[in-house]
Amino acid sequence: MKTADLLHQFQLTRTHTEQICEPLEIEDYIPQPIADVSPPKWHLGHTTWFFEQFILVPFAKNYQIYHEDFAFLFNSYYNHAGKRVLRPNRGLMSRPPVREVMKYRAYISEAMVDLLNNPIENPEILERIELGINHEQQHQELLIYDLKYILGYQPTFPVYGSAFQTNETSRGKLFKVPEGLYEVGFEGSGFSYDNEHGRHKVFLEEFEISDQLVSNGEYLEFIEAGGYENFDYWLDEGLSFIRNEGIKAPLYWHLIEGEWQHYTLSGLQKINPELPVQHVSYYEAQAYAAWKGLRLPSEFEWEIASEKFDWGQLWEWTGSAYLPYPRFKKAPGALGEYNGKFMVNQQVLRGASVATATGHSRPTYRNFFHPAARWIFSGIRLAK
Amino acid sequence: MKTADLLHQFQLTRTHTEQICEPLEIEDYIPQPIADVSPPKWHLGHTTWFFEQFILVPFAKNYQIYHEDFAFLFNSYYNHAGKRVLRPNRGLMSRPPVREVMKYRAYISEAMVDLLNNPIENPEILERIELGINHEQQHQELLIYDLKYILGYQPTFPVYGSAFQTNETSRGKLFKVPEGLYEVGFEGSGFSYDNEHGRHKVFLEEFEISDQLVSNGEYLEFIEAGGYENFDYWLDEGLSFIRNEGIKAPLYWHLIEGEWQHYTLSGLQKINPELPVQHVSYYEAQAYAAWKGLRLPSEFEWEIASEKFDWGQLWEWTGSAYLPYPRFKKAPGALGEYNGKFMVNQQVLRGASVATATGHSRPTYRNFFHPAARWIFSGIRLAK
Amino acid sequence: MKTADLLHQFQLTRTHTEQICEPLEIEDYIPQPIADVSPPKWHLGHTTWFFEQFILVPFAKNYQIYHEDFAFLFNSYYNHAGKRVLRPNRGLMSRPPVREVMKYRAYISEAMVDLLNNPIENPEILERIELGINHEQQHQELLIYDLKYILGYQPTFPVYGSAFQTNETSRGKLFKVPEGLYEVGFEGSGFSYDNEHGRHKVFLEEFEISDQLVSNGEYLEFIEAGGYENFDYWLDEGLSFIRNEGIKAPLYWHLIEGEWQHYTLSGLQKINPELPVQHVSYYEAQAYAAWKGLRLPSEFEWEIASEKFDWGQLWEWTGSAYLPYPRFKKAPGALGEYNGKFMVNQQVLRGASVATATGHSRPTYRNFFHPAARWIFSGIRLAK
Amino acid sequence: MKTADLLHQFQLTRTHTEQICEPLEIEDYIPQPIADVSPPKWHLGHTTWFFEQFILVPFAKNYQIYHEDFAFLFNSYYNHAGKRVLRPNRGLMSRPPVREVMKYRAYISEAMVDLLNNPIENPEILERIELGINHEQQHQELLIYDLKYILGYQPTFPVYGSAFQTNETSRGKLFKVPEGLYEVGFEGSGFSYDNEHGRHKVFLEEFEISDQLVSNGEYLEFIEAGGYENFDYWLDEGLSFIRNEGIKAPLYWHLIEGEWQHYTLSGLQKINPELPVQHVSYYEAQAYAAWKGLRLPSEFEWEIASEKFDWGQLWEWTGSAYLPYPRFKKAPGALGEYNGKFMVNQQVLRGASVATATGHSRPTYRNFFHPAARWIFSGIRLAK
Repeated sequence: MKTADLLHQFQLTRTHTEQICEPLEIEDYIPQPIADVSPPKWHLGHTTWFFEQFILVPFAKNYQIYHEDFAFLFNSYYNHAGKRVLRPNRGLMSRPPVREVMKYRAYISEAMVDLLNNPIENPEILERIELGINHEQQHQELLIYDLKYILGYQPTFPVYGSAFQTNETSRGKLFKVPEGLYEVGFEGSGFSYDNEHGRHKVFLEEFEISDQLVSNGEYLEFIEAGGYENFDYWLDEGLSFIRNEGIKAPLYWHLIEGEWQHYTLSGLQKINPELPVQHVSYYEAQAYAAWKGLRLPSEFEWEIASEKFDWGQLWEWTGSAYLPYPRFKKAPGALGEYNGKFMVNQQVLRGASVATATGHSRPTYRNFFHPAARWIFSGIRLAK
Repeated sequence: MKTADLLHQFQLTRTHTEQICEPLEIEDYIPQPIADVSPPKWHLGHTTWFFEQFILVPFAKNYQIYHEDFAFLFNSYYNHAGKRVLRPNRGLMSRPPVREVMKYRAYISEAMVDLLNNPIENPEILERIELGINHEQQHQELLIYDLKYILGYQPTFPVYGSAFQTNETSRGKLFKVPEGLYEVGFEGSGFSYDNEHGRHKVFLEEFEISDQLVSNGEYLEFIEAGGYENFDYWLDEGLSFIRNEGIKAPLYWHLIEGEWQHYTLSGLQKINPELPVQHVSYYEAQAYAAWKGLRLPSEFEWEIASEKFDWGQLWEWTGSAYLPYPRFKKAPGALGEYNGKFMVNQQVLRGASVATATGHSRPTYRNFFHPAARWIFSGIRLAK
Repeated sequence: MKTADLLHQFQLTRTHTEQICEPLEIEDYIPQPIADVSPPKWHLGHTTWFFEQFILVPFAKNYQIYHEDFAFLFNSYYNHAGKRVLRPNRGLMSRPPVREVMKYRAYISEAMVDLLNNPIENPEILERIELGINHEQQHQELLIYDLKYILGYQPTFPVYGSAFQTNETSRGKLFKVPEGLYEVGFEGSGFSYDNEHGRHKVFLEEFEISDQLVSNGEYLEFIEAGGYENFDYWLDEGLSFIRNEGIKAPLYWHLIEGEWQHYTLSGLQKINPELPVQHVSYYEAQAYAAWKGLRLPSEFEWEIASEKFDWGQLWEWTGSAYLPYPRFKKAPGALGEYNGKFMVNQQVLRGASVATATGHSRPTYRNFFHPAARWIFSGIRLAK
Repeated sequence: MKTADLLHQFQLTRTHTEQICEPLEIEDYIPQPIADVSPPKWHLGHTTWFFEQFILVPFAKNYQIYHEDFAFLFNSYYNHAGKRVLRPNRGLMSRPPVREVMKYRAYISEAMVDLLNNPIENPEILERIELGINHEQQHQELLIYDLKYILGYQPTFPVYGSAFQTNETSRGKLFKVPEGLYEVGFEGSGFSYDNEHGRHKVFLEEFEISDQLVSNGEYLEFIEAGGYENFDYWLDEGLSFIRNEGIKAPLYWHLIEGEWQHYTLSGLQKINPELPVQHVSYYEAQAYAAWKGLRLPSEFEWEIASEKFDWGQLWEWTGSAYLPYPRFKKAPGALGEYNGKFMVNQQVLRGASVATATGHSRPTYRNFFHPAARWIFSGIRLAK
C-alpha cells in the first residue's frame, strides 16, 4: 500500500474505533464479565499501544513514550513485549480514566501521522503499519462483541443503537461441488495474515454445501425437538459444556413467559425466525448439523465453494481445527506471536460478520476460536 | 432522638457519603477486585435503597418507587427483601451510570426530608430512620476500605487525599485490671445495635492489657525475626492462609528495592515505624501476640479496660468469637437479618477507626469480620 | 497412672483399633472420599507412628526406626515432625499394603511393651504414653466415622455389623438451672487434655436445658415443615452451605420412593423416629433450635447441667466457639500442636458418643469440629 | 474372523488382562490419583461389563445378569447404556472387592465361551465380539499406563517388573518423501475401527521425516538449553500448561541430587540417553520440534512414510487434530459412541507402543488424546 493510502486508512480506522464507543457510558468501559471479554477501555489502549510498541518506539526518531506503565497495562499476550496485567484482571483497572486513554490515543495517532507524513523507505515499517491497522480492525470487531456482552449482562438490557444487525435470509439449498484437486490459501497482493499463506493443493471429494446460513426459525425447530437434551447429537465435550453451563439456547436468548426473546444491540426483542441464528458455539453448530443428518463444511470446502454463495453476515464455524498450512513459518520476535501460537484446540471460522471492518475480509481469511465461544458473531452453514 | 435531630443527622450523613466519593474518577466507582470489596457505586445505591425499602415503601404516603430494578441491584443480603445481584457480580454492573445513582440518592433524600418535615408518631419509623442513618455510617467506613482497595490495586498507586490517616503512637505499657464480676453490654439511651444488648455479668480473672496499639516498628521486628515463616506462632488455618496467599507482611506493604513501603490514601510511602500497624488479619494479630509471648484481649476484657486507654484509631482484633449475648433475640423480618445471622466463624473487633463516622462509636460496639479480613482498618492491642 | 496399668491400657487400646477394622475388606482401607475422611489404613499407621515418633525415637534405647518413609506417610499435621503427604492425597497411597502396616503396628507395640516392662522414672515418658493411648482412642472414634463414610459411599450400602448403634430416647423436657458463679474446666487426677485445663469461674444467668437429645421424629417435623427451605432459621453461612451442597436432610438420609431411609453400619434402614437424630452439622442444629424458638446450650451451661441428664450417645453441638481457657499455654514442640492451633472457626461439642472409646469421656472434655461437619456422630440438645 | 479363532483370541485376551495385574497388591487396584487414570479394578470390571452389556444381554439365551449394580459401576461413557459412577469417583469404590470382580470376570468369560461354542450365524454378534476383544486390548494398554501412574505416585517407587520396556534407539536421519496424491485410511479385511474407515486421497507436498524417535539424550539437550523456560517454542496453551503445573521435564522424571532419574516399571532409574524419550505431552513434543527448527509430521505423512521406518515402541504425536474422515458415519446406539464423539480438541497419535497388545496395531490406526496427556506411552518423531 502507498504511504498516502496507508495514512488515509490509518485515520479512518482510528476514528472508527472511537465511533464504535460513542453510545457507551463511561461506566461501560470498565467491566470484564468473563475472561474472554475485555473492557472497551482496554481495547482503546491496546490498539494504541500496538502502534507505539511496534512502530513508534523502534522507528520514530526522538519518540517519547507516553507513559511507562501503559505497556504493562495494555499488552495483551506478547511475551516478547514484557510483563502485563493478567487477562482476568483487566476489568479491575479503573485507572487511567477513559479521558486519559483518549489522550493517549490522540498522542499516538499524531505521532503516527507525523511518521506517515514523511517518506518511509523501510518496507518493514510500512508492513507493520498495515499490520497495525488490520490489528485495530480485528479489535473493532472484538470490541463490538465485548460491549454487547457487557450491555447484555445488565438487568436493564440497555439499547446501544441500530448498527451491526444482520439481514433476513431465505431457506437454504444444498448445491454440489465436484471432486478435485484444488488450491487454497492466500496468493496475490494486498494485506493478508501469515496463517493464510502457503497456497497449496488439497484433494476434495465431491460435497454439497448450503447457499444460506441456518435461520433462527430452523434452529428453533432443533430446540423444540429436544436437541439440547438428546446426547446423541453432541460431541462428548459439547455435552459436558452445555450441561455444566446450563445452556438450552444460543447466547442472549431468554425464555420470557413462554416466548423466546433475545438481547440485541437494539435491546430485548422477540426472535425473528428469518434472521440467521447467531451466538452459537461450535458444539451447538455441530449438534445442529448432526440432528439434520448433515455436517459442517471443512475450511477448504468453504473456501472453494465460497464464490457460489453469499457470505459476510456471520462468521461460519467449520469442521476444521486451526492448524498451520504447509510451509508456515512464524515471524521472529513479538509479531510472530500474532497467530501461530494459538494453533491447538481451536476451530476455524470462515467468512466475516456485520461487525467486521470494511475491507477486512477475503475468502482465504482464517478466523479461529475455542469451540465453546458464543459471544462472537458466529453462525451455521451446513454441508454433506 | 427527636425528629429535628434526626433530620439534621440524616442530612449530615447523606452529604458525608458523597463527600467521601468526591476524589474518585467515575471509573473508580465500578470495579470489584475481590468479593469482599463492593464498588463505590453500589454503596451509594445500597444505602439509599435501605431508606426506600424499609421506610419509604412501608410508611410514606403515595410514595412512588424510583425504579423497580433497583431493589434487585442494590439489596445486599436481605433474603426477606427478595432476589438480588450475586455479590461477586456487583463489579459487572456498569448501569445505571453514577449520575443516575446520584439522582436516585437525591430523590430518596428528598422523600425522606418530606417525611421528616411532618410529625412522626409511630416510634418504629423513628427507630428505622435512626437505623438507616447508622447503616449508612457503617457503609461510609466500608466505602473507605473499598475505595482504598480499588485504588491500591492500580499499578499507578493513585493519590486519594490526606483524610483518614492515623497518628503516631508511643511504645505501649501493660497495666493490670483486677479479677472481678463485671457487667458488659449496652445499657442506656442513644442508638445501639441488637448485638450489644443484653447487659450481663461476666467473671474475669486478673489480666493485663496494653495502653497502646502495636506500631509498625514493633511489627517489623516480627517480620524480620522470621515471624511469617515460623509455623509455631500460627493457628493452623492462619498458616494455610498466609501460605496459600503468599502473605509476608500486612496488606498494602511492598518490599521495593529492599525497603518496606506501603500504599496509603496519600499514595505509596515509606513505612513510618511510629504509626500503629494496620491492615492485619486476625491470624497475623494472633501470631504477633504469640511471638511476644502474649495474647489478644477478649472482647469483655477490652470493654472493661477501655476507659483506661485511648482508642479509636483502628479496630482492634479480640480473641472472642462473634456470638450472641444472653437473651439475644433477632428482630422479626428483614431487619432481623442485620446482625444475628452472621454469628459463626467471625471474630469480634472492638473500638473504632479513623474511618469511622463521627458519633458512630461506643465502648460496647461489637464489630465483626472473618479472621482473614485484611482490607479493613484493623490493628493490634496486646494482653496477658 | 502406674506403669502396669499403662501397659494394660496400651494393649487394650491397640487391640481395640484392630478389632474395629475386622469387618473391612482390604479394599476398604484405601479410599478417601472427602478430605475430612482418612483411609482406615492411614489411621492404623498414624496412631502407630505417634508412639514411634514421640516415645520410641526419643526415649527407647537402641531403637531402630521401622521404615524411614513412614514418618512422611503417617504424620498428620505436626509441623514440628517434618514433611508429610498432603491430607487430600492420603487415599492415593496404596503402598505400603495393609499387611505391612499391620507388621509396623506389631513392631511398635512390641517395642512399647519392652519399654513398659522396664521401670520408667522419667514422668514425661509416662505422660506421653498416656497421651499416645488417648490419641489412639480419639482415632478409634474417627476411624468409625471414616469407615462409615467410605461404606456409605458405596452404591451397594454394605453391612459393617451391629456395633456403635444408639438407643431409643424419650421426648425431652426442659429443666431449670439457677443463675450463679460456677466453676468449669478440668481439675483433679486422671488424664485430661490441655484445652480443658485452667479451671475457672464463669457467671451464668438462669437457663433451661433439655434432659434428652432431639429425636429423628422431632427432626422429621422440622424437615416436613420446610425447615431446610426457610432462610429465616439459618445462619448466613449455614444457608450457603446447605444450598451449595444441596442438603435437605441429615447425612446418610435418602428419600427412597417417598420414604426416608438412612445408611447405618447395619445397612440401609427405615428411619426410627425414637432414635436421636445423628449426623447433623452445627448449622442444622442451630436452625432446628431456631425453628423451635430455642437455642443450643453454651459449653459451660452444658458442663454445669450435665450431671442432671444422661449423655454419651452422641456428641452434642454447643453454641460456644472453640477458644482457649484462661491461662491456656500450649506445650513446647510438636505435642503443643495437639489442640491449641485449631482454636478458630470451630464449635465445641460436649459429651461423648457410642463410638467413643471406653474411659475416654468426662464432663469437661472439649471436642471441636468445623460447623459444617456431618460425618461425625453428632446430635442436638436444646436450651433456652 | 472364524468363531474358533475368535474363541481363541477371546481367551488369550481375557487371560492377558489378568496377567498384567499379577504383580499388583490388592491395595493397588483401588486408587485414582487423577481423573484420567482409572483404578485397575475398574478396568477389570469395565472390559467384562462390555461383553455382558453388548453381547450377552442382547444375544445370549436365558442369560442372567451377574449383578444389577455393575452396569452403574462399570459403564465408562456410554450414555446409551444408562447412568454411571462419575469418572473422578472411580477411586472411591472399594466395593465390590477385587475377588468379586474376578468372579464376575470368570462368570462372563464362561458365558461367552458357551456362546462361542455354538454356531453363530448373526454377523453382528461376531462383529461385536471382535470389537469387545479389541476394546479389552485397548484397556490393557490403558491399564498399564494407569498402574504405572499409581505405582509412580507412591513415595517408595515400587517395582512392578521388567515388562513393557523400550529398546535403545540410534540418532535419527531425515529422509525425503515426494509430493503426490496418496491414499490413506483402512481398506481390506481384518479388524479396524470406524474412525480409520473411508479410505481417501490426500495431496501431500514433499516432506522429510526421521527414521527414529527422539532419544532421552536429545531431549536432555532441549532441557539443558532452557527449552522449558523459553516461551518462544511453545504454543500459548502449552506455555500455560507447563507453567501452571510446574512442568520442567517429562512425566516421571525427577532431578535427584543434580542427576535426572525417572520412575520406570522396574523402579527408579538413571536416565538412559539412548532410549526414546517417553511420557511427553503434545505441547512438549511440539516445543521440542520448534526448538530443532522442525515440526511434527501430519498423520497422513506418517501413514504414507511409515513403511520406511521402524515403529511400535511408543505412540507418536502428530500435528493432526482428531477429526472425521470423509464419509465418516457413526454407528447407531451405544457402539456409535466409541470414537466419533471425541472428535474435538484432541491430537492424533500414530504407531503403537511396547504396551500395545499383540495384533492390535496397523499403519492406519488412529489413536487420540488431549494435548496435555503425559501418562500415556508417547514419544516424538520429527518432520520437516
